[in-house]
Amino acid sequence: MASEQMIKPRSISGFPEWLPEQQRLQDRWMAAIRHIFQSYGYEHIETAAVELTEVLAAKGVEQKEIYSLTRLQAEEQEDSRFSLHFDLTVPFARYVALNQAQLTFPFKRFQIQKVWRGERPAQGRFREFYQCDIDIVGIDQLPLSFDAELLEVMGAVFLALNSGAVVLKCNHRKLLQGFYEDLGLSAEVQAQVLIEVDKFEKVGRDVVIERLQALGVAAVKIEKILKLATSRHSLEGLEAHLNSFEVESELFRQGVDELITVMASVPTREGVELLWDGSIARGLNYYTGVIFETSLSGSESLGSICSGGRYEDLCARFSKTRMPGVGISLGLTRLFSHILAKSELDKHLSAEHALLICMDEPSRAELKVLAQSLRVSGWKVELTPVGKLKKIMNYANKKGYQNVIIPNEDGTFEWKSMLNGEQERLSKDVLLLRKP
Amino acid sequence: MASEQMIKPRSISGFPEWLPEQQRLQDRWMAAIRHIFQSYGYEHIETAAVELTEVLAAKGVEQKEIYSLTRLQAEEQEDSRFSLHFDLTVPFARYVALNQAQLTFPFKRFQIQKVWRGERPAQGRFREFYQCDIDIVGIDQLPLSFDAELLEVMGAVFLALNSGAVVLKCNHRKLLQGFYEDLGLSAEVQAQVLIEVDKFEKVGRDVVIERLQALGVAAVKIEKILKLATSRHSLEGLEAHLNSFEVESELFRQGVDELITVMASVPTREGVELLWDGSIARGLNYYTGVIFETSLSGSESLGSICSGGRYEDLCARFSKTRMPGVGISLGLTRLFSHILAKSELDKHLSAEHALLICMDEPSRAELKVLAQSLRVSGWKVELTPVGKLKKIMNYANKKGYQNVIIPNEDGTFEWKSMLNGEQERLSKDVLLLRKP
Repeated sequence: MASEQMIKPRSISGFPEWLPEQQRLQDRWMAAIRHIFQSYGYEHIETAAVELTEVLAAKGVEQKEIYSLTRLQAEEQEDSRFSLHFDLTVPFARYVALNQAQLTFPFKRFQIQKVWRGERPAQGRFREFYQCDIDIVGIDQLPLSFDAELLEVMGAVFLALNSGAVVLKCNHRKLLQGFYEDLGLSAEVQAQVLIEVDKFEKVGRDVVIERLQALGVAAVKIEKILKLATSRHSLEGLEAHLNSFEVESELFRQGVDELITVMASVPTREGVELLWDGSIARGLNYYTGVIFETSLSGSESLGSICSGGRYEDLCARFSKTRMPGVGISLGLTRLFSHILAKSELDKHLSAEHALLICMDEPSRAELKVLAQSLRVSGWKVELTPVGKLKKIMNYANKKGYQNVIIPNEDGTFEWKSMLNGEQERLSKDVLLLRKP
Repeated sequence: MASEQMIKPRSISGFPEWLPEQQRLQDRWMAAIRHIFQSYGYEHIETAAVELTEVLAAKGVEQKEIYSLTRLQAEEQEDSRFSLHFDLTVPFARYVALNQAQLTFPFKRFQIQKVWRGERPAQGRFREFYQCDIDIVGIDQLPLSFDAELLEVMGAVFLALNSGAVVLKCNHRKLLQGFYEDLGLSAEVQAQVLIEVDKFEKVGRDVVIERLQALGVAAVKIEKILKLATSRHSLEGLEAHLNSFEVESELFRQGVDELITVMASVPTREGVELLWDGSIARGLNYYTGVIFETSLSGSESLGSICSGGRYEDLCARFSKTRMPGVGISLGLTRLFSHILAKSELDKHLSAEHALLICMDEPSRAELKVLAQSLRVSGWKVELTPVGKLKKIMNYANKKGYQNVIIPNEDGTFEWKSMLNGEQERLSKDVLLLRKP
């Protein structure tokens, strides 16, 4: 291979990778999230990374920048009909429609997988990233108690991740629709208005006013729209607050009732604030009930780290069975990279890791047996190659070991703590009784 | 969306997906594999799914059918330089070269990720599948004890997966090279011979003989080559057996010595047979020392489920630092789908799962608190919507619950075992003391 030109190794922008000590933290996050999802009865599924392009690029599916596949050496290109999924909702819908007969409904599932979007990378925006989704989908109907459960579960997740205080922000599509209908806006204009209002935080008040004017919305209505879109309220007194908008609409009333039912059913948790937020809109095509977004307190510019809502029919494109559902998706990579960037990482291996030093080759066979016994006791034991003690202690230190075990010539062992340098002499029997 | 044409949902051949009860088993496998890898001090990394195409398609890299990416809506196509990785070794080499300054050497890592190959799907051959890799890479040198450790670790993995007896088959590239040199074969012919011999099991003896003749190898040499390539031997008496080939070559001798050192250092385990196998060759470009393949006893036609070996310089294409290493890769999806197909799956959720039935909405808030307390005790508790008891018991049964908790009107609870139908009446206090 000497004749071949060297390639300078580089990372690809938007495709994040972590060092081992960073990966350990992400692994702990993943384990905590999986555990909580399972603790509420959600079942794990994984879908293929790839879908038929026609499934992903269909009308009615939010258009993202899709990566499609080409085989480098292909004669025929059947595979060119494949693309990488850009979220986990479309694959979930296809999976449910495909396996409907074998699933148990209401089907509660979680899915933690990478997704890919061919977007220009930026702060907090990746081209490859993990999403953690939970959805519940029923046949014909799905009780509102599930909408509240999603918020409860995600609240538990944020607490477990210890990623800082969050605000879970809710709104309701019927509330919005009733409000706009009451203003006399046509369905078409409503859709446009929602899109513009959704950009409020990004583009600012003046731009939104300009664009609503361009849509032909009267000034007095724009004022009302913006009043709603800039209003937030906690559950206590929310009904009175929403009544103060004086909307004459059955749809609005339904939305308010459902919203309050859901919000009232979410257990309160310290560090997890629950608010109604009139600016939450989330597009018009898909969601039909409660909608959610989440901001990290003090890091609002990061955007929503966890979003979702209630939809009317998950599998409308695949199946005639009506399957209403509700789902929420945590943007794990965005949140994780943000937390990594702003906090000091503990580089230590966890306390059940120990490095067992092999002083000479003849002792290796016996140390292997010892290491295996310690593993059975719950330790994670790495047995070293033979080398200079100083070099091996450097290795232990750099890799983050808290515990190092050094065999003595008399058959005893030194148990050395790398945290405080203290050493204990242990007989083999005592060593074998030690638990992590 | 009513106006849109319906799409018939289908799975894509070669991109396996599992039902929730199958996924549970794969999750248990993954957890067991991760645990064992970590128990030996291997650190977890993940690389991006994507590499620059020039990195994957370079000379010297085994050519697989690579999937490259195209953005469906792109104006400029910087992204067309990206391809999906087809194994975890090339990404690992790039990762090590990129992060060399921040890693601790010898760097012991594990990586469990999907890889993609644009091959024609067949029995046991997928286009998307999981590989589980462990490698150790050193700077300038790497002791042989690591080669043996890989076999020890994979032996532990096979035992933990309970996937049936396996044969770990070893050979050594120096042994092969010395043997061929002693026959007077040029380096070029050696490379060709290895490729042909590697196909022995697939194409059969006669075809191999024909092809070796076509390479101009004399009949008497072909006979010797095939004698070696069809020979297997356990460690006991292996040296004498290899001496019986009467090879006059220092390289052969070195190979035999290293092979025996490694094999002798692997702890014996029931259900894991360790053999020297003269047919193992694994291409010529990459490996330079011990090489491994693994067959599942009774399912040899499945091919090798776990392969690897020693290499001279992991990052030769990226860095001038010489980094010898040794690695082994388990083809998880191939093994998993094989085991799934031939065994009966236990469809029960594990015993710490319980279904808590909500009899009416007013009691939900209190049951949520109860469910949370049970979760803190280690239970995984799903709280149901309100519905007909019979329908909910069907749900519990179909989803695989072993435990169902039914509130009574007097504040006590029925704890029902779905395995034997037995029911216990428990006060709330006693229920809360119950541990999984």
